[in-house]
Amino acid sequence: MFTGSEVEAAAARIAGHIRTTPVMAAGPGLFMKLEHVQHTGSFKARGAFNRILAAREDGELPENGVIAASGGNAGVAVAHAAVALGVPAEVYVPETAPEVKVRKLTALGATVRRVGRIYGDAYEAAIKRVADTGALFCHAYDQPEICAGQGTVGLELLAQTGGVDTILIAVGGGGLMAGVAAAVEGRAKVVGVEPERIPTLNRALEAGGPVDVEVGGTSADSLGATRLGDIAFEVAVRTGVESLLVTDADIARARRALWDDHRLVVEHGTAAALAALATGAYRPRPGERVAVILCGANTDPSDLAG
Amino acid sequence: MFTGSEVEAAAARIAGHIRTTPVMAAGPGLFMKLEHVQHTGSFKARGAFNRILAAREDGELPENGVIAASGGNAGVAVAHAAVALGVPAEVYVPETAPEVKVRKLTALGATVRRVGRIYGDAYEAAIKRVADTGALFCHAYDQPEICAGQGTVGLELLAQTGGVDTILIAVGGGGLMAGVAAAVEGRAKVVGVEPERIPTLNRALEAGGPVDVEVGGTSADSLGATRLGDIAFEVAVRTGVESLLVTDADIARARRALWDDHRLVVEHGTAAALAALATGAYRPRPGERVAVILCGANTDPSDLAG
Ligand SMILES: Cc1ncc(COP(=O)(O)O)c(C=O)c1O
Ligand SMILES: Cc1ncc(COP(=O)(O)O)c(C=O)c1O
Repeated sequence: MFTGSEVEAAAARIAGHIRTTPVMAAGPGLFMKLEHVQHTGSFKARGAFNRILAAREDGELPENGVIAASGGNAGVAVAHAAVALGVPAEVYVPETAPEVKVRKLTALGATVRRVGRIYGDAYEAAIKRVADTGALFCHAYDQPEICAGQGTVGLELLAQTGGVDTILIAVGGGGLMAGVAAAVEGRAKVVGVEPERIPTLNRALEAGGPVDVEVGGTSADSLGATRLGDIAFEVAVRTGVESLLVTDADIARARRALWDDHRLVVEHGTAAALAALATGAYRPRPGERVAVILCGANTDPSDLAG
Repeated sequence: MFTGSEVEAAAARIAGHIRTTPVMAAGPGLFMKLEHVQHTGSFKARGAFNRILAAREDGELPENGVIAASGGNAGVAVAHAAVALGVPAEVYVPETAPEVKVRKLTALGATVRRVGRIYGDAYEAAIKRVADTGALFCHAYDQPEICAGQGTVGLELLAQTGGVDTILIAVGGGGLMAGVAAAVEGRAKVVGVEPERIPTLNRALEAGGPVDVEVGGTSADSLGATRLGDIAFEVAVRTGVESLLVTDADIARARRALWDDHRLVVEHGTAAALAALATGAYRPRPGERVAVILCGANTDPSDLAG
């Protein structure tokens, strides 16, 4: 069982390596946690540091370092954390991964391996390499240390706001949601928000367990896990996480409104959480204190001009 | 004499109308005040609300409302504050003002008057209109109520950080610098940072009083006042404000670094304050607590992509 005590331990472990990100009051009873200004531009740095530091603490960090499979924020976060801790990092991406992502990983100091046509191929290759070499695998969401690291953003939020009733969180594989839900269990309700076109949490709750979903739409680069993680499912059911869906059009509007009204730039997947409020998909009770986690900003801001 | 008590009064007056903007720890002893997420995308909303609310408090707010001369952030802020308070706003801009700025002012609900080829023409027309109609003039920087409103960002900063030693501030006409320097007098040192190509404060300190300077470079849209305000000069001398210059290239690098490292988008003029640190133009003593005010984000973010 994955619980808040793992998140508390993670918070102590990663302090000094991650940024305490600011919280902004954005209306009566509404808070935005500006986690998108975290190192590497997303919360994923928290989990990456926690996974590596926990292994080192246990004397289980191999000489040959860490391996991740991700062309996105998780890979960048693992590369950043590994290099910051003086640990070699190998990141597997599909051959179709955008050149700009590969350059970023390389610039951080990671070794990039391009394998296969889809993410699944790169993932399989990473797993095989881990089996061959004994390097430490850093999953994008379904490992306790990863979830625990992500959850520290929830502890920080409660401390900074003096407590909230509800936290809106974008869900992909569910590592962030699981970590935060465990961290705030009994103190705040968590609502997982997903694009209609990537309903991993929604379908898992319907089906009674994680199931594969089709992945599409504008948030696929960050929320495009094909199924919810097992830890995420267990925590979601145990703590009563609610699930809401929004459309890509809602997400685009919320992302634009964040720039127009607050001069904040976030990626599409991140804007999903705010879209749930903006559309009325989530309607707070009078007096309810609601926080939205803005969790990533690795986006091209060009379309926001004007 | 313009002092901190006017800023304290302004803070009480405008509370509830402006955003308490977040502070971010950005390194050992380094804080960034994210004032660029203020309503209208700059600190100018503070001064605008204070000017209008102070007049109303004194029973001196005319039926025909307020007048400003500005195609930039000051004009937008006055339009926003006036409309929010149910007061008519007329904003004078030169005929050369970009269509996008005019549309923004109009969308906010202001009446836009396009007069003359340069800003000075629009300013003269605004002053004449004020004389003819008795409407309330909102200067872009050289009025006590404007400076007092801007200074509230300094009070907020001290409260949020528990105090700092030094505050770095971009200077145009000097309203922000004057307000903050008066607000923190005796508690923190203020350093005014300007682009080499618009040295209003620098030349004023050299000359023993405000003098006209040539205006050029990438920050002219926000820092392009042709001379320092009288209030700003008096406060700068009295409180010992230091003056530093940075190049447009330094500013461009600092603006890009803010995006690359923190996913924050600011306008060029705003990045000047950070550039002073990044270039070593300002070198903190060991243990010195330094805050940088990020004061505006009305910029096209397209060039930050990639
Ligand atoms: C910005 C951003 N938001 C949300 C998510 C989803 O996180 P999780 O897979 O833990 O649900 C990701 C995953 O990469 C992300 O990068
Ligand atoms: C974003 C921004 N920064 C700085 C300034 C300079 O302010 P001041 O004229 O009060 O020195 C301005 C003025 O418009 C501005 O808009």
